[in-house]
Amino acid sequence: MNLQGLSIIGHGRGTATGTPRQAINPATGQPIGPAYCWATDAEVEQAVQLAAAAAVEFSRWSGEQKGDLLQRLARLLEANGAEIVARAQLETALPAARLQGELARTCFQMRLYGEAVTNGLTAGARIDHGDPQRQPLPKVDLRSIMVPLGPVAVFSASNFPLAFSVAGGDTASALAAGCPVIVKSHQGHLGCSEMVGGLIQQAARESGAPAGLFSLLYGDGANLGVTLVRHPQIRAVGFTGSRRGGRALMDVAAARPEPIPVYAEMGSINPVFVLPEALAARPGDIASGLHASVTLGVGQFCTNPGLVFVAASAQAEAFLAELRTRMAATPAGTMLTAGLGASYRQGVEEFSKIAGVERLTEPDTDRGPGNARVKAALLVTDAETFMQNGHLAEEVFGPVTLVVRCASPAQMLAAARQLEGQLTATLCATPGDLQAHGELVEIMKLKVGRLLFNGFPTGVEVAHAMTHGGPYPATSDGRSTSVGTRAIERFLRPMTYQNFPDANLPEELQEANPLGISRLCDGKVTPANS
Amino acid sequence: MNLQGLSIIGHGRGTATGTPRQAINPATGQPIGPAYCWATDAEVEQAVQLAAAAAVEFSRWSGEQKGDLLQRLARLLEANGAEIVARAQLETALPAARLQGELARTCFQMRLYGEAVTNGLTAGARIDHGDPQRQPLPKVDLRSIMVPLGPVAVFSASNFPLAFSVAGGDTASALAAGCPVIVKSHQGHLGCSEMVGGLIQQAARESGAPAGLFSLLYGDGANLGVTLVRHPQIRAVGFTGSRRGGRALMDVAAARPEPIPVYAEMGSINPVFVLPEALAARPGDIASGLHASVTLGVGQFCTNPGLVFVAASAQAEAFLAELRTRMAATPAGTMLTAGLGASYRQGVEEFSKIAGVERLTEPDTDRGPGNARVKAALLVTDAETFMQNGHLAEEVFGPVTLVVRCASPAQMLAAARQLEGQLTATLCATPGDLQAHGELVEIMKLKVGRLLFNGFPTGVEVAHAMTHGGPYPATSDGRSTSVGTRAIERFLRPMTYQNFPDANLPEELQEANPLGISRLCDGKVTPANS
Repeated sequence: MNLQGLSIIGHGRGTATGTPRQAINPATGQPIGPAYCWATDAEVEQAVQLAAAAAVEFSRWSGEQKGDLLQRLARLLEANGAEIVARAQLETALPAARLQGELARTCFQMRLYGEAVTNGLTAGARIDHGDPQRQPLPKVDLRSIMVPLGPVAVFSASNFPLAFSVAGGDTASALAAGCPVIVKSHQGHLGCSEMVGGLIQQAARESGAPAGLFSLLYGDGANLGVTLVRHPQIRAVGFTGSRRGGRALMDVAAARPEPIPVYAEMGSINPVFVLPEALAARPGDIASGLHASVTLGVGQFCTNPGLVFVAASAQAEAFLAELRTRMAATPAGTMLTAGLGASYRQGVEEFSKIAGVERLTEPDTDRGPGNARVKAALLVTDAETFMQNGHLAEEVFGPVTLVVRCASPAQMLAAARQLEGQLTATLCATPGDLQAHGELVEIMKLKVGRLLFNGFPTGVEVAHAMTHGGPYPATSDGRSTSVGTRAIERFLRPMTYQNFPDANLPEELQEANPLGISRLCDGKVTPANS
Repeated sequence: MNLQGLSIIGHGRGTATGTPRQAINPATGQPIGPAYCWATDAEVEQAVQLAAAAAVEFSRWSGEQKGDLLQRLARLLEANGAEIVARAQLETALPAARLQGELARTCFQMRLYGEAVTNGLTAGARIDHGDPQRQPLPKVDLRSIMVPLGPVAVFSASNFPLAFSVAGGDTASALAAGCPVIVKSHQGHLGCSEMVGGLIQQAARESGAPAGLFSLLYGDGANLGVTLVRHPQIRAVGFTGSRRGGRALMDVAAARPEPIPVYAEMGSINPVFVLPEALAARPGDIASGLHASVTLGVGQFCTNPGLVFVAASAQAEAFLAELRTRMAATPAGTMLTAGLGASYRQGVEEFSKIAGVERLTEPDTDRGPGNARVKAALLVTDAETFMQNGHLAEEVFGPVTLVVRCASPAQMLAAARQLEGQLTATLCATPGDLQAHGELVEIMKLKVGRLLFNGFPTGVEVAHAMTHGGPYPATSDGRSTSVGTRAIERFLRPMTYQNFPDANLPEELQEANPLGISRLCDGKVTPANS
C-alpha cells in the first residue's frame, strides 16, 4: 500500500500543509517515513460536515447492508494483513505473532458485529399491539426500535494498533449501529493507521456508502481531539487511553450546549485475590499464570493484573519467591513508545520509594537504542501501607504488579472496599474459597465489569456476553462495554412509532416480521426464525 | 393517614427543625396544613448512608422479591387511593377523575415493572459457552447480567403528583433495578408526597427490605437537590422538570470527581405536522383533537403539542378558525401553582409581542383567588418568523399552541430541520401524505423519542415499547426512556462472570435456567419457558 502521510476525508484526502511528523520505531529510535501532515481546521470541518450529511442516509441502511460493509472490510483487512502487520511491527515493536492475532481478532469482531446487525440482534424490536376497545381509553399500537445517535468521534489507542484503533471496536460498533465515524489517529502508529483507514475508505466506496461515512484525521488530542468533541455535529465519542485524557474529553463533552455521551476506557489495575485453598492446591500454577499475564505484551494491556492480594502465610512467601524468580528472569521488552517507557520507570520508582513498599526485582538501566526498553518489576507491601497510600491503587502502565500481604480476611475485605471501579477482578479460588469469602465476592461484583473465577484477566474474548467496562474511573460510563456485541448499543437510542401504517414501519417492526428476527411482542420474547 | 410534616428517613422520621412551610391550594391561595420541615444536613447524610448500606443487600434480591415489593406497594396505594386523591386535589387543583386515573397508572406501572423483573425481562442474561479445545487459545465461559448502579436520587415532578413523583416512574424503575431510592419531594404537593412516601416505607418494612431502601426528603432544589447529586454515595439521578433545573443537575453531576448519569426529562414542544391530504379529509377532527390535547389538564403535560405546522391554504385558514373558536370557548383552568400561572401568562405575552406573531385568543385578566387561573391561548405565525426567532421553539408550559403557516413543503422541511430534540412529533397524515413527505419523516425520526401517525401526543402509555425520551434538550440523555419497562435499564449496568462455578452464579445465569427466563445463548435468543 502506498502511504501518503495525509488524512482521509470521506472519499478524498487531506492536503500536505504544516510541519510534518514521522513515526518512530521504538526499538531503534529511528524515524519511519513518510512524514504525516496534521489535518487543518478546514479539513476537520469538512470531515464533520460530510459525516453529518452521511448520517441521515446511513441511518436508513438495513442491518444486512451494514453487515455486508463490515464483512467486506474484514476481507480487505485479511487480504492486506501481511503488509499491515509488518508496518505495525515497525511502529510499535509488538511481535508479529501478537499483531497477527490482533488482526484476526479485528476481523472476527467485524464479522460478529456484522452478523449481529444482520440478524437484528441489536435492533431491540418491541411491539405492543393496540386495543381500540380498551376502556376507559383505546390502547395505541406501539413499536420501538434502536436508532443511531449520529456521527461518532473515535480516539484510537496506543496499545492495540488494530483491535482498538482505526478499524477497532468503537469503529466496528459505530458502523454496525449506523453511525458515521471520524477517527483521530494515534501518533504511535501513523502508517498502520493510514493503511487500515484506506481500506475502510475502499470498503465504504465499494459498498456504495455516502462519502462522509468515514474519515481518518491526523492531529493531536489537545487541538484536533477537543475540536471534534466540541463540534455540534458530533453526537458521541469513543476513547481508549489514559484517565487524564479520557476525563478531559468527558469534561469537554459535558460542557457543550448539547452534552453528548463519552465512552472512555481509561484502564484499571485489575485486582487479583489469591485465596487460601487455591494457593495451597496450586501455588506454582498461580505464580506462573500471574507472571505470564503481567508480562504479556510488555504489560501493555488495560486488563493487566497490577495488584495481587494474598493472606500473609508461609505459603504466600513461597508463592512470592516463585513469582520473583519468574519476574526477574523475564527478558527486557520494548514498550510502544519511549514516553511510555519513561512513565513506566517513573511509576515503578515512585512506588518503590514509599515506606513499606519493597521492590523484589532489580531496576534496569539498559533502555535500548529507542529508550523504550524496560524490565518487569515485582513490588510487595502490606495491606496497611496499601490502604494508607491511595496512590498505590493507581495504574502503572507496563509489566509490573504489586503484591499486598493481608494480615487477615477482614483486612483483605477492607482493602477491597477501598478500591475504585475496575475493568476486572480475579478470584484465584476453589469453590470452597468462594463460600468462605462471600462478602468479598459481593463487594467486587459492585466494582467491576468482569469477575473471573481463576484464569487471568488479560485476553478479552469478543463475545455476546463480554463486558469490557466497569464503574468509573475504569471507564467514563459503566453502563457500557467496549468489547462484544453489546458495544453496538452504546451508539443507539430507542425510538417508538405510534399507530404507524405497517408499510411505513422499518421491516424489523412490521407485523409479518419479514426479517424473522427475535422481538419482544406484548411482553413475550419471540425467538428468531432460523 | 396522619400527616406529620416530616421527612421519611429509612424506617424513621426527620425532626421538626427550621422554618416550616405549608402547601398552598392553587384554587384558593390558602395554605393547607400541616407545616413541613426541610430535612437538615445531618438527616440528608443519614438517608444517603442508609441507602449506601442498603444497596449491597438489595442488589442480592431476586427479581421475584423485587416484584413482590412493587406489587405490595401497588396494593397499598390502591387501598389508600381515596385519601391520596383527595389530598392531591387540594394541593394541585387537578380534577379527581384525572388523579384517579393517575393513581391507577401508577399502580399499573408498579405491577408491570414487578412482572418484568420477576420474569427476568430486564436481567439481560447472556451466555457464551466456553470451549477448552479451541485453538490457538481455549475459549472461556462468559455469562453476563445487568446489575444495579446503587442509590438513586429521584426529583419528583410538579405536574404528576403520583405518576412522576414519590412512587412514580423513576422510583418504580430504580426499585425494579435493585437500587435504593431517595426522593426529593416537590413543594407543590407536600402532603400527597408524605402519604405516598409513608406507604413505600410501609411496603419496604413489610417486605423485609433493608432500612435504607427508601427515604423521602423535604427541601429545595438549590440546597437539598444539589447536596444529593454531589454526594459520592449517590450513583444516578432521575429528574422531571424544567430545562434550567435539569441542566443545572447535569452540570453538577458531570463535575463530580466520579461523574454519574442524570436522567432529566425537561419537556418539549412536541411539533404536530398537519399534512394536506389529512387536512382535506378531516379538518374538524384534527381541530377538535388538537384542541383537546392542548387544553387537557390545563396544558400541563410534557407531551403537550405546543407547535403546529400547516401548509398555508384556504383549508388551513378554515382549520385555524375552527381551532380558534374551540380555544376561545375553553373555560379558564387552574394551574398547579401561582408561579406556573405567572410563567404561562408571561410566556404567551412574550410570544405575542414578536412581530409576525398574532394572538388569536383574548388575553384574560381573572387570575382567580389563588392567582393560578389561566385561559387557553392560540398563536399563529409564518415559517420565516418562526425560523428567525429561535425563542418561539421554546416550551411555554400551559394550554397554548403556536400554529406556523408554511408557504411550501420546502419551508416546512427547513423549519423541521431547525427543531431541537423532542419527546414526540406527530404527523396528522394519510399514508399518501407519508409517501409525499418522506424526507420530513426521516428528519423527525432523528429528532424524537416517539413518532405518531395521527392521534395526539398527550397520553403516554405505560408499555414495553414506549419511549418517553428523546434527544437533548427534551431529555438529558436520549439513550433512555422514563416510561415503560425499558426505563428499568437506566439504573442498570452489565457485568460478566468468567468461568464461574454454576452454583455461584445468579440463578438467571445458571446452566439449567431454573427461572425459565429468556436468554441470549451463544448468539441465539431463547424464549422464556411458560
